[in-house]
Amino acid sequence: MTVTAAAPAWAHRHLIDVEGLTRVEIERILDLAVQMRAARTERRDRSLLESETVGLAFYEASTRTRVSFELAAKALGATTVDLSVAGSSVTKGESLVDTLRTLERTGVSMLVLRHSAAGAADLAVRTTGMHVLNAGDGTHAHPTQALLDSLTLREALGGLDGRLLTIVGDVAHSRVARSNIHAITILGGRVRVAGPPSWVAGLETWRGVEVATTVEDALRGADAVMALRVQLERGAQLDAHAAEWRMDDDRMELAAPGAPILHPGPTNEGVEITAELANGPRSLIGRQVENGVPVRMAVLALLAGAA
Amino acid sequence: MTVTAAAPAWAHRHLIDVEGLTRVEIERILDLAVQMRAARTERRDRSLLESETVGLAFYEASTRTRVSFELAAKALGATTVDLSVAGSSVTKGESLVDTLRTLERTGVSMLVLRHSAAGAADLAVRTTGMHVLNAGDGTHAHPTQALLDSLTLREALGGLDGRLLTIVGDVAHSRVARSNIHAITILGGRVRVAGPPSWVAGLETWRGVEVATTVEDALRGADAVMALRVQLERGAQLDAHAAEWRMDDDRMELAAPGAPILHPGPTNEGVEITAELANGPRSLIGRQVENGVPVRMAVLALLAGAA
Amino acid sequence: MTVTAAAPAWAHRHLIDVEGLTRVEIERILDLAVQMRAARTERRDRSLLESETVGLAFYEASTRTRVSFELAAKALGATTVDLSVAGSSVTKGESLVDTLRTLERTGVSMLVLRHSAAGAADLAVRTTGMHVLNAGDGTHAHPTQALLDSLTLREALGGLDGRLLTIVGDVAHSRVARSNIHAITILGGRVRVAGPPSWVAGLETWRGVEVATTVEDALRGADAVMALRVQLERGAQLDAHAAEWRMDDDRMELAAPGAPILHPGPTNEGVEITAELANGPRSLIGRQVENGVPVRMAVLALLAGAA
Repeated sequence: MTVTAAAPAWAHRHLIDVEGLTRVEIERILDLAVQMRAARTERRDRSLLESETVGLAFYEASTRTRVSFELAAKALGATTVDLSVAGSSVTKGESLVDTLRTLERTGVSMLVLRHSAAGAADLAVRTTGMHVLNAGDGTHAHPTQALLDSLTLREALGGLDGRLLTIVGDVAHSRVARSNIHAITILGGRVRVAGPPSWVAGLETWRGVEVATTVEDALRGADAVMALRVQLERGAQLDAHAAEWRMDDDRMELAAPGAPILHPGPTNEGVEITAELANGPRSLIGRQVENGVPVRMAVLALLAGAA
Repeated sequence: MTVTAAAPAWAHRHLIDVEGLTRVEIERILDLAVQMRAARTERRDRSLLESETVGLAFYEASTRTRVSFELAAKALGATTVDLSVAGSSVTKGESLVDTLRTLERTGVSMLVLRHSAAGAADLAVRTTGMHVLNAGDGTHAHPTQALLDSLTLREALGGLDGRLLTIVGDVAHSRVARSNIHAITILGGRVRVAGPPSWVAGLETWRGVEVATTVEDALRGADAVMALRVQLERGAQLDAHAAEWRMDDDRMELAAPGAPILHPGPTNEGVEITAELANGPRSLIGRQVENGVPVRMAVLALLAGAA
Repeated sequence: MTVTAAAPAWAHRHLIDVEGLTRVEIERILDLAVQMRAARTERRDRSLLESETVGLAFYEASTRTRVSFELAAKALGATTVDLSVAGSSVTKGESLVDTLRTLERTGVSMLVLRHSAAGAADLAVRTTGMHVLNAGDGTHAHPTQALLDSLTLREALGGLDGRLLTIVGDVAHSRVARSNIHAITILGGRVRVAGPPSWVAGLETWRGVEVATTVEDALRGADAVMALRVQLERGAQLDAHAAEWRMDDDRMELAAPGAPILHPGPTNEGVEITAELANGPRSLIGRQVENGVPVRMAVLALLAGAA
């Protein structure tokens, strides 16, 4: 589908998670992202959001997501303001709600929020009037990551209908995995998850999701594979995990011919993925990052009613 | 009064404290702030300060003041540069004066400075040629906070002439209180301060200030009440303080009918103010924050000679 | 020489160190810096770099260099994005290369990098496609500092041909000194280095460099003197160092009449230089900082092919 002048108004003031979106809506975001990618290159639409003030409130460390949102906002002419937590009143013990209300009252119209607590973005919706863009809230959701992954997969596979994505790693605690499961299934694809039992616990009840217990079962017939980051704090278990679940070129041969590998980054090379695979011809990891800015441009424009 | 094309040139290069201003000057700032509020909404005056470079040097944690100054400068088209202390040469042991001179020599024309040392802003005036805007220096002064409080009170009460503001808390160590005492009395109002004896010590000698020793005496006849933030480090004394001095809806009934409550934020709900009062119909706390940006736009424009 | 419309295309995509530049190239940078200084004052060229996105990645504390690069980029209309390390994924253990590739994929076209590891800027060149501007890498190089020092000296002395610069301090571990030695000798000058033996070890083999072992030998006939910052961690040795090597007005009398003093900042007054000398009429320290922005404007414009 193509976004035309006759496109209906965007129905949502916020982007908190993916499951509230319809297939038509997700495809509209991805289509607009493709347009935004060209617009950025050609330096068009540079005042589309000039009446918006985008507040970047990252309560967890981030390079790619913060930079990507900031450059997306600036590419469309928005004013940005960075709430660097280290230098903020957060260290005075100010509550999250107080801080967000303060941002709103200084004129921030669109809030990009990352927080370690699941539900933080929803709290922002309930307590302020800003447009809220969830940039990751605990183990709950990371919708723009799933949207950029969906765009990357759509462009690599030619579409997601009937395609199978295998996600390997600690799916149960990954907001990236959860949002991707929603996005892929809404777009007509299927998802298989795999990893140690405690890392996929409960996933068997999700609609459109199957659970694999060996790496062979996980990869058989997969049209694409996504490896998740392993938390390095887990220490001694890393070697055992690598032996059983690390993605490499050999294991990728178990998947469909030419199946690509994705990873939300930053990678632990040698732990959940080999350096050869991460940097080889199957890797879409670079494309994922590249798609971050145009997808976020599209979301900002749609939420602001400016698309 | 209205600012007209015939307004005289602004007489001050800096804003260090309130007591150097005349009533006419303060009213001119507040009048201009009202205009700036409309200009911001209507996206006018967006290149008024395009030849200025505003340096934000916050040596103490701040959300509302830093963000508010940054958005004020950007709304008028100034270039901004943030000296985030965490990542600066301050950690090399560079002296404050050296850092400020460096900022000036890189082209910063207007310095917004917050520092834990009383007199830091004055030091900047004496050692550099930048316009200096004191964003809080130790226990000395926080003039833009007092100006935004004055605007908030003027709009809520219809004027300050003959009005009584009661300030409750650690007045003796509060730069917010000190600057407000100056602003309110210059504007024709009266101030009553109240709190434990050591928190109001010495205030009895200030012109236009009376000291109350009980919460009943403090609130009787007050046209507005300002609660100050209690430092949470005081620990065990918090319960006793709350019992005696915490502002709540019942105690506010002792003040003039409909008297509003103010607080410079961030609040410690349950300590110096109840959540009900802070978020209830008497509260002007949100308006105080909202008035921060236009007041700072006005001050920046006046100091730069661009108003 | 004057840069004219017929100036040849700039031959370098990066600025990693000074020794890769010819005399003609260095003089072209300095000439352009002089033009940029006027352009900034007159607010010209404000969209020269509007199609560039400049990423500021400072892995070491800095005030003057970061602020100076940021204001240079903004003065020419570039989009800037600050990778403040404190709030970045660096704390997740992400590798430098991963972070830099991420910046490139989000659209950063020019990277300004400071890092404690010698060779970091070169690594960025080898692993990404961005223009790389070395803002200091370990003990290796700090080319823009040397260029601004060269401009400062050229304007103070009327040229560097045959002139003698004495550098006093820990030359062996100073990227500032190393880059200055290259710049000054390429521009036709001579360099003498001096300090405790371990601080000048190995320098005797450099072409165009002589080593002095006493302060008298160091200063005799010097047309200009540069004092380096002493690392305060050296503790007890500071007094002995000051007695033997601290630059003051008396010792400067040993140099050529009117010889100026330079220092890369921030100074430790009383340690390697007296406050009187640093702030007196011989001092070019302020001019060094002032020349930082125009020199960096020139380098950014040349590397981007926009000059």
